[in-house]
Amino acid sequence: MSQTTLTISSKTYSSWSMRGWLLARFAKLPFDEVVIALDDPAMRAEILLLAPSMLVPCLQHGKIKVWDTLAIGEYLNEIKPKAGLLPSDGAARAHCRAICGEMHSGFGALRAALPMNLKGHFPGFKIWARAQADIDRITAIWESCLDTYGGPYLFGSHRTAAEAMYAPVVTRFMTYDVPLSPACTAYCETVMALPEVQEWVDAAKLEPEEVDLLDMEF
Amino acid sequence: MSQTTLTISSKTYSSWSMRGWLLARFAKLPFDEVVIALDDPAMRAEILLLAPSMLVPCLQHGKIKVWDTLAIGEYLNEIKPKAGLLPSDGAARAHCRAICGEMHSGFGALRAALPMNLKGHFPGFKIWARAQADIDRITAIWESCLDTYGGPYLFGSHRTAAEAMYAPVVTRFMTYDVPLSPACTAYCETVMALPEVQEWVDAAKLEPEEVDLLDMEF
Repeated sequence: MSQTTLTISSKTYSSWSMRGWLLARFAKLPFDEVVIALDDPAMRAEILLLAPSMLVPCLQHGKIKVWDTLAIGEYLNEIKPKAGLLPSDGAARAHCRAICGEMHSGFGALRAALPMNLKGHFPGFKIWARAQADIDRITAIWESCLDTYGGPYLFGSHRTAAEAMYAPVVTRFMTYDVPLSPACTAYCETVMALPEVQEWVDAAKLEPEEVDLLDMEF
Repeated sequence: MSQTTLTISSKTYSSWSMRGWLLARFAKLPFDEVVIALDDPAMRAEILLLAPSMLVPCLQHGKIKVWDTLAIGEYLNEIKPKAGLLPSDGAARAHCRAICGEMHSGFGALRAALPMNLKGHFPGFKIWARAQADIDRITAIWESCLDTYGGPYLFGSHRTAAEAMYAPVVTRFMTYDVPLSPACTAYCETVMALPEVQEWVDAAKLEPEEVDLLDMEF
């Protein structure tokens, strides 16, 4: 067994797992996946709280154990500085961390109303006001970044940790058929075309369905 | 006017303001305070969401603007590396970021049930199961750190960003009379004795009361 493992849960439903996994892939750190089933009681609590915790994602790299998605990103940026997880310019780096932080701690209405579901597609899905306010803030973040740094990624020509943090939101916008501006639509297509995102989405579609999950109360 | 400002809100009630302010003080970065009143509609929304956002805390340092508490902490650590906001040992640094991340994105039940209130003291306050689960996790984090690194701070003899992140929790434990182990009680006393924490608490007690806030629904 490799000395490096990344603990995740469902590739279809666990947005925090997806973020941690993309960060590790972007950093080109080889790892073995350890998968916690969604019917594990601890995992269920994790999903119900709609928040990351020490359970997933969790990176074990030799003797070092790092949980929490942002902490994993900072750790990977330290050990793989050439991977460009953070912008090299100081002001852009601060901006990148700020919007990654917003995703990390906020957008609770979006997370609750539009849970990640990589197997679903719901045209005409009704979006209520609180979730729409989150969507408006997220698209404002994206448009500001694309305008400031020129795209096609949020911080210019190279994908950063911000793409890992917002990729699950991109999939939600497609799953729930969220109307977007041309600039945001193009950004979503750019993120979906990332080979690492494609690999994750393809793997999700091969996962057996866990019907029990659909009974969860959010 | 100084080129460095930190935007905050109520010193009595805004735990995110307290965290950002402590980080800047720990880093010994001189700054002017800009205070957003709690009756500002944007601020009210911020507090009701129980999450940090771009509003507070927000650090403007020359041309660089950083919001989100963790992003401010990482920025300050970059420009003031000698302040020791993060442990110098790599494994301890990863651990510190992980527990700061847990505070940043989690403990929603604790935040909702035991809001920060530096003017209040409620002996015998009834703590319900979900908030107690958060308390149990937090005290487990603290005891593990104090055991691993030897105290009196979470990462040994020097205070780090972790003290800024958990200081509002320490005040909640005192406000709501939460029973704690001797090790956690000693840790709380250590945090409350930090001169920066004392300065913040003293300023909070001098703030005029905003009665309207007490009608907020959490």
